[in-house]
Amino acid sequence: MDTITSRRNPIVRAAAALLGSPRERRERREFLCEGARLCRDAAESGVRIKACFFTPRAGERYVEYLKPILHAAEAAYTVEDPVAGLLSDTKSPQGVFCLCAWPQGGQGAHDGPCLVLENIQDPGNLGTILRTAEALGRFRVVLLGDCCDPLGPKALRASMGAVFRLGIETEGDPGRLMEGLKDEGYAVHGAVPSDRALEVTGIDFTRGRHAVIIGNEGSGLSRETAGLCGDLITIPMGGRAESLNAAAAATVLLWELSGRGEGKWRG
Amino acid sequence: MDTITSRRNPIVRAAAALLGSPRERRERREFLCEGARLCRDAAESGVRIKACFFTPRAGERYVEYLKPILHAAEAAYTVEDPVAGLLSDTKSPQGVFCLCAWPQGGQGAHDGPCLVLENIQDPGNLGTILRTAEALGRFRVVLLGDCCDPLGPKALRASMGAVFRLGIETEGDPGRLMEGLKDEGYAVHGAVPSDRALEVTGIDFTRGRHAVIIGNEGSGLSRETAGLCGDLITIPMGGRAESLNAAAAATVLLWELSGRGEGKWRG
Repeated sequence: MDTITSRRNPIVRAAAALLGSPRERRERREFLCEGARLCRDAAESGVRIKACFFTPRAGERYVEYLKPILHAAEAAYTVEDPVAGLLSDTKSPQGVFCLCAWPQGGQGAHDGPCLVLENIQDPGNLGTILRTAEALGRFRVVLLGDCCDPLGPKALRASMGAVFRLGIETEGDPGRLMEGLKDEGYAVHGAVPSDRALEVTGIDFTRGRHAVIIGNEGSGLSRETAGLCGDLITIPMGGRAESLNAAAAATVLLWELSGRGEGKWRG
Repeated sequence: MDTITSRRNPIVRAAAALLGSPRERRERREFLCEGARLCRDAAESGVRIKACFFTPRAGERYVEYLKPILHAAEAAYTVEDPVAGLLSDTKSPQGVFCLCAWPQGGQGAHDGPCLVLENIQDPGNLGTILRTAEALGRFRVVLLGDCCDPLGPKALRASMGAVFRLGIETEGDPGRLMEGLKDEGYAVHGAVPSDRALEVTGIDFTRGRHAVIIGNEGSGLSRETAGLCGDLITIPMGGRAESLNAAAAATVLLWELSGRGEGKWRG
């Protein structure tokens, strides 16, 4: 196995370039995964691992994690600590990294309940919502408009690897998405924080196909998207104005959309 | 109004000592609140503000926020930036701080549904759960055992001020808490991630008084507490083992415990 000692090594530089640049990830259709657990999770989820990098210390400490990773990896390198620093997005790196190809997209579109996220900007929120979606049912997930990258380092960590398995679709245009969903028989509900919208409990999500669209953390649904929804739904809330954060609102909506825990049996 | 320029000023040092020390907060029954919005929220929630500190720049930028704060504050000081640095827990301080007395405890114990948090260790999780509790209904909230401090800087920020208004009870001993709850007619449900527990949807939370206990992020309910619960409940989950994070699980349980949005009308 090769050892990389120079921070100028072109293989390392190409991997490190993926860390901070959504554009780089998109153009190369690659991403960088960090951490023993998350890298093992990528390997076990069938993500293509083009290269694994680990420090000598990580090689000892995470030997059990590294087995399935190295089995799946097309190349492997040991790296010195300063080189590992280039690849890390965390304060205390574990020293295990994988350069991966984009996930294949799981089962692709299926007929389960559909979660649409529009213009979600915070990677922690996006990752948390994806993790919750995987836990609560078999959802179809679509990123609409200008969402942050689910394969960026913060979103990956928060998702606990859900992004490897969910088969996320992306769509830039609300009109085209809505048309597609309606053609497939989905009733499309836009989530808004408004007393005048329909309470989410007023809909029987266990009958028929339903899609729920959640908007940006600060500004909510875009006007265009809100206008294209079949109806607008809301979570009844007391307390003061600040109300639920984006991930908490998404959790309630996913739970209801799943038929309160029946979602895992469908799809 | 006095201006404090020295980082050795005893008033500032006494305020700064509250920032990092739960013990200091407990012994003095005081806490330090940071940020224009959160400080205004404290003032408007009836929290006793013993002193307000702000930088000259904050005095201009947050003039509308400062009005109700200064109206409520028993003392006020302008502080130079290096002094403000002592009082801040954030990377980019807004320069507004209040030294506050512990919240009065709201309405105290009432007869609404009860959320018990046992040994929650992450301040961000604790704050987020308190924020969600305030939004979703009128809950009685009890911190059991060794929870982190809801008046620490990170928990305060995540709670968006919910801690000012919730009237949180604390209890060290599971046996005493359980006895009290059962005497008051509560059915006590322990939340666990186990297929063998009762699904949360199997309980009709709209009838009778119910308490749900959520345990530590990593290790769950303590053995003692689990043994004292009337029953154990769970959120049915698919996906991989990692499942829901603590705040997401709490959101689903609070939503169900509230009667899916009816909680705000009760209590």
